[in-house]
Amino acid sequence: MEFQLIERYFQRQAKRPEVVLGNGDDCALLQSKHTLAISIDTLVEGTHFLQSQIAPLDLGYRALAVNLSDLAAMGAKPLSFLLALTLPQNDQQWLTEFSQGLFSLADSFDCELIGGNITKGPLAITIQITGKLPTGKALKRSGAKAEDNIFVTGTLGVSPVRPTPRIDFAAGLLDLAHAAIDISDGLIQDLNHLAQASAVGASLVLPDIPCHEIEKALYRGEDYELCFTAPPESRAAIETLAKQTNTPLACIGKITTKQGIFDAQINQAILIKGYQHF
Amino acid sequence: MEFQLIERYFQRQAKRPEVVLGNGDDCALLQSKHTLAISIDTLVEGTHFLQSQIAPLDLGYRALAVNLSDLAAMGAKPLSFLLALTLPQNDQQWLTEFSQGLFSLADSFDCELIGGNITKGPLAITIQITGKLPTGKALKRSGAKAEDNIFVTGTLGVSPVRPTPRIDFAAGLLDLAHAAIDISDGLIQDLNHLAQASAVGASLVLPDIPCHEIEKALYRGEDYELCFTAPPESRAAIETLAKQTNTPLACIGKITTKQGIFDAQINQAILIKGYQHF
Repeated sequence: MEFQLIERYFQRQAKRPEVVLGNGDDCALLQSKHTLAISIDTLVEGTHFLQSQIAPLDLGYRALAVNLSDLAAMGAKPLSFLLALTLPQNDQQWLTEFSQGLFSLADSFDCELIGGNITKGPLAITIQITGKLPTGKALKRSGAKAEDNIFVTGTLGVSPVRPTPRIDFAAGLLDLAHAAIDISDGLIQDLNHLAQASAVGASLVLPDIPCHEIEKALYRGEDYELCFTAPPESRAAIETLAKQTNTPLACIGKITTKQGIFDAQINQAILIKGYQHF
Repeated sequence: MEFQLIERYFQRQAKRPEVVLGNGDDCALLQSKHTLAISIDTLVEGTHFLQSQIAPLDLGYRALAVNLSDLAAMGAKPLSFLLALTLPQNDQQWLTEFSQGLFSLADSFDCELIGGNITKGPLAITIQITGKLPTGKALKRSGAKAEDNIFVTGTLGVSPVRPTPRIDFAAGLLDLAHAAIDISDGLIQDLNHLAQASAVGASLVLPDIPCHEIEKALYRGEDYELCFTAPPESRAAIETLAKQTNTPLACIGKITTKQGIFDAQINQAILIKGYQHF
């Protein structure tokens, strides 16, 4: 029955030249000269979403969007993905809507489903995504330098049901930015990961953070927006890129040599906390 | 806490030249001239195992072994993997043993953990594995030809806790065999997948199937042995390869132009069924 479910809802013809073999064998086959960016993310019912509060159409979209956000955080362009779906039962209506939501986003980024599996159990969706990067280039967390401006995309603290992956904007940042991370666990916690990986600190101008409630912007997770740092001389080009790609952008502070995350207006440390997985 | 758990139990230094960037960023980065073989597999508590009946050490081993088996079924050599772990709670003892079991097998195949995530929820383990193949080569399901011999490795129907991935043997088959599949849902169901993908049938000599109970060999899943087909002229070389790689091997029948799976001794169709996922 797993095989019929896959054929019915998830079988697609491979189109990209990099996909040598798609769905339907023990492995998919990929061939690419590019550097491949690889990530995996899981949404578990009861932890990341409640089935009563999200439509299958939105869930399919969201499950892929959070993975695309990881590619954007490296500046990578989507190539393909695998889907590991755990379902309590064979629910045709649910599968129809979930796969529609999933493919609506996948198709808009030419991101091909090349394999996966469906198993019985408590509802959970794991997607492994593969993107491509020009050889030797990537927006790592570890590249931030003192005096870099700190930017964020979008509005923080709103945890949208359908996050917008900032793929095209991020790919344009490869030659402009020093470091990037996606905001999945709250701005402060994620910026702190970036700062620690780069052995620097950050000073934030809180009123410049685009949000409705500053507490949620700082500490609530699941925004799936980008936080990145870039040297002052890149600023004009970054702002042009943001306009070209229709990306809301704000400069919210500066990278400092002093480690920690600081409130620039009162010159005090900001408490570092965020989404706790356990 | 997720980050500390990952650092404590799963952080490893990337060693392979193909791994440009390992654990700890939004994506891992891979660079390879080879064709990449990519697969994903999930073990869910209550469906694939019972926590009361399998030690975490064995579970860690098994979770990777079932993925290595998919690589073997393509003739691919292991390169790297991602781990998506869903845990009900932060259990240090469990994580210590699980990671030991996982890495004992990973290290024996130089298969590097390059990323993943840990989420809270009902116990489940998803591993995405990446292997490499010489460009243009792979043991697909679709290559079987009439008159091919059908071989299996190991003993069927025993569903071992620690399956033996037939990696080296399978890599040696690339120039000798026509088609392969791993036996995860029972010999008959999986051989039928291979036969259908190749638009052929199969005739089996049941007494030649290495097993203790023929019903279990035919229909019980989770053997994670290889079933493959090869032209008669490859047979001697395959038997030599099996000896060199210490792989138990049996020839159990022949590929036929007539579709379906047949019992050669009574010339009757064998019922096609196997592990049902739903």
